[in-house]
Amino acid sequence: MSTIDLNSDLGEGFGHWTLGDDDALLGVVTSANVACGFHASDPLIMRRVCDRAVETGVAIGAQVGYRDLPGFGRRFIDIEPEALAADVMYQLGALDGFARASGSRVRYVKPHGALYNTIVHHEEQAAAVVEAVTAYDRTLPVLGLPGSAWLRLAGEAGLTTVQEAFADRAYTPEGTLVSRRLPGAVLHDKDVIAERCVAMATGQPVTDVEGGSLTIEPASICVHGDTPGAVEIARAVREALTAAGATLQPFA
Amino acid sequence: MSTIDLNSDLGEGFGHWTLGDDDALLGVVTSANVACGFHASDPLIMRRVCDRAVETGVAIGAQVGYRDLPGFGRRFIDIEPEALAADVMYQLGALDGFARASGSRVRYVKPHGALYNTIVHHEEQAAAVVEAVTAYDRTLPVLGLPGSAWLRLAGEAGLTTVQEAFADRAYTPEGTLVSRRLPGAVLHDKDVIAERCVAMATGQPVTDVEGGSLTIEPASICVHGDTPGAVEIARAVREALTAAGATLQPFA
Amino acid sequence: MSTIDLNSDLGEGFGHWTLGDDDALLGVVTSANVACGFHASDPLIMRRVCDRAVETGVAIGAQVGYRDLPGFGRRFIDIEPEALAADVMYQLGALDGFARASGSRVRYVKPHGALYNTIVHHEEQAAAVVEAVTAYDRTLPVLGLPGSAWLRLAGEAGLTTVQEAFADRAYTPEGTLVSRRLPGAVLHDKDVIAERCVAMATGQPVTDVEGGSLTIEPASICVHGDTPGAVEIARAVREALTAAGATLQPFA
Amino acid sequence: MSTIDLNSDLGEGFGHWTLGDDDALLGVVTSANVACGFHASDPLIMRRVCDRAVETGVAIGAQVGYRDLPGFGRRFIDIEPEALAADVMYQLGALDGFARASGSRVRYVKPHGALYNTIVHHEEQAAAVVEAVTAYDRTLPVLGLPGSAWLRLAGEAGLTTVQEAFADRAYTPEGTLVSRRLPGAVLHDKDVIAERCVAMATGQPVTDVEGGSLTIEPASICVHGDTPGAVEIARAVREALTAAGATLQPFA
Repeated sequence: MSTIDLNSDLGEGFGHWTLGDDDALLGVVTSANVACGFHASDPLIMRRVCDRAVETGVAIGAQVGYRDLPGFGRRFIDIEPEALAADVMYQLGALDGFARASGSRVRYVKPHGALYNTIVHHEEQAAAVVEAVTAYDRTLPVLGLPGSAWLRLAGEAGLTTVQEAFADRAYTPEGTLVSRRLPGAVLHDKDVIAERCVAMATGQPVTDVEGGSLTIEPASICVHGDTPGAVEIARAVREALTAAGATLQPFA
Repeated sequence: MSTIDLNSDLGEGFGHWTLGDDDALLGVVTSANVACGFHASDPLIMRRVCDRAVETGVAIGAQVGYRDLPGFGRRFIDIEPEALAADVMYQLGALDGFARASGSRVRYVKPHGALYNTIVHHEEQAAAVVEAVTAYDRTLPVLGLPGSAWLRLAGEAGLTTVQEAFADRAYTPEGTLVSRRLPGAVLHDKDVIAERCVAMATGQPVTDVEGGSLTIEPASICVHGDTPGAVEIARAVREALTAAGATLQPFA
Repeated sequence: MSTIDLNSDLGEGFGHWTLGDDDALLGVVTSANVACGFHASDPLIMRRVCDRAVETGVAIGAQVGYRDLPGFGRRFIDIEPEALAADVMYQLGALDGFARASGSRVRYVKPHGALYNTIVHHEEQAAAVVEAVTAYDRTLPVLGLPGSAWLRLAGEAGLTTVQEAFADRAYTPEGTLVSRRLPGAVLHDKDVIAERCVAMATGQPVTDVEGGSLTIEPASICVHGDTPGAVEIARAVREALTAAGATLQPFA
Repeated sequence: MSTIDLNSDLGEGFGHWTLGDDDALLGVVTSANVACGFHASDPLIMRRVCDRAVETGVAIGAQVGYRDLPGFGRRFIDIEPEALAADVMYQLGALDGFARASGSRVRYVKPHGALYNTIVHHEEQAAAVVEAVTAYDRTLPVLGLPGSAWLRLAGEAGLTTVQEAFADRAYTPEGTLVSRRLPGAVLHDKDVIAERCVAMATGQPVTDVEGGSLTIEPASICVHGDTPGAVEIARAVREALTAAGATLQPFA
């Protein structure tokens, strides 16, 4: 039987402001990408999410981002690689402290937002994040987009790389994501989404944006949780995977 | 022969702004209280200070503070204990990540500025910092003022407590610090300061602010380094201690 | 007929995080206490709220607070008076720029959260906020709690002071607020709240927490809007006041 | 006789951290580009600089930048134009409040660091800054690099544009700055610098980086002040201009 991981972003509130439903998601996913305070989250949120992740058996991953609370880490910042590496290590260490206090550890690294998108192609910043992970703990797997500079450089540096797919995104025939600016880039029908996830988890092809057949075999599927509807979709994905006989467990 | 530790605040710049002479101090002290980014410092500075501390054999301590870059951590903040504990754990974890990447570990905890002063008497905040250290790593010693709620509660919680004295501060007959608002609170003559440090390190009495005799036996002496003159004083203290036959080494 | 103002806190989101329903409240209140970016809000939010307040005829007030995004301005900070005054002027100027660009001006000042509560009794900080308003524009009215040091010192400095009541708070026989820590401090029944507001607006007594009769004659009544239920209550208050023949208009 | 303005960056400390010698520069320049708290400065510094600028007759300009204290505004941020415009208006309003409290006004706008460099060519961000100034006060002149998108779009929007030259930078034959990455880009000899400034102020040619002759006729010359040596150079420039009979006065 096939095994698959479901990952999602958690801990993305800040102080008085809330975002998403962390508790609901912890009942759905197997890996939690926990924000580390640079683009979202704060120490109290991080501590609570780590405690609850450990209670529910969800793996804790470091969702590292640019230092950009006002922009939620969604703005590219042309930061020097040396400073970016230090920023990533800082976030890793901070989250890992909470994870260890909760009886676990940070199990993987997944960059967030503009940093995620930037290091698909930006060699210098990708190398900086790789250097940070390597310096911090070279046994930590890194999660990312197939074909990205990030995964390629991480692999060359000897890190374990893990490929993810997106539950609710359309793919080109080449296996890349359809730009959000194009129509049809984001899927909304939870049954369609769940069905595609089952296909991806079991080695079956899915339909690409041009109607062709595309086989994606991710080790992890990313679901979103920052709207009530998104939690519904995440639950539908989990139920469909379970019904199809897939084993849900952390990749890490 | 007696053994003594010299500690000082390091890594207190922020981004483009510098403060103090970290490299000079690393040649003088045996323990570096490294700021953790909440009241001063940034990840790049923290990484560099940790690297150099390890190279020079200086012990790395976590100089944790209120989240207050604009006020340099010198303003009391009436933060809820649970949030304060999480803030302290976050800083501890972040610095520890750099320390481990440099081949060492955070060896002790010393609060900074208004937090240091507050937990001399503020039971709730003192307990919160103790809870943070306990949750993070109960083997970490904590450094502080003799007679403080901080050291008392830490001791009750089973943490190792370490008492420090201040090289350049006058003491009352009761062994507490003379308030900075009173004349004579801060000593400026480097020979006088060095001589007092030798006395403190070797179990001899020093003169209190009223002319009496006071015996202080600290495990660590705090010297300052944020002005050129302060580095001179720190060097004079080290030379005098060495000349007196004291062994300078980290307490941790 | 009597005239009354309704004020409420607006613009309290931050970046990606939202809070309250600004558009709904702008259809209810006559004065908007707009957060200025130190404890909540950001420039984009401030610009939009000012534009819409001008469109709807709602007066713009500066909701100034401590520099404390992580604590939403709800933590007392022991900041030096000179620095507090500068922080308040900065916020005033920033909001006033948006108000003027929208075709209006900042019409009044109302401190937020811990600053509001602190300057009820903290003479030095109260004087600092008064100094800031005086230096910025001595024609600006200030809104606050009857009996507070803030209003007393503002009056002595020649500022126009405006007293407010709280729609959903219980009062002691002396006319002060019942502490939130005590049972019954916050009212939840929208009909009761609306009825009390009508009494306050028309010079009739309300029932104090001990069952006695208390006459409060505020120039403005504060309603909340950061939950869906709160908007319902605010609407009920407005409707009841209108039904009772009161004229709702900005005090400023 | 010719008239010329000297501008320099001031108020670039932050909290406990100092940078440059504001008081010394206020005795040299005629226009002060005052940082507004987003990349440097804080309200207390801004208030003091405005007070002293008014006392010394120096014009106050708004040195607006990206929201980036950790990077000192030197990192390009791919911020949405609407958010950038609001950020600029916020900074303008905040500084203008202090300037008015000091008895003056903000007299001009000069972007800082990465924002300055970006809007030389980035049309969207340049347009956003122009929109901000236009919305705030369309009578405010803007200061910038000849040939920049910033000055071109500002001119098209009806703003008064003012061209500046750099005292210590080498120019290409086309009149653009030699990249800092190339040798000879920055001049260090104060006599050479002063002599070039006299030429620029009096309509005489200067030598370009290839040895040719280049006539630059700026309305303002930018001098630096963030090192002791820089203040010396600024003084030498002022003395040489005065000796050459030029009148130093604010362009605004």
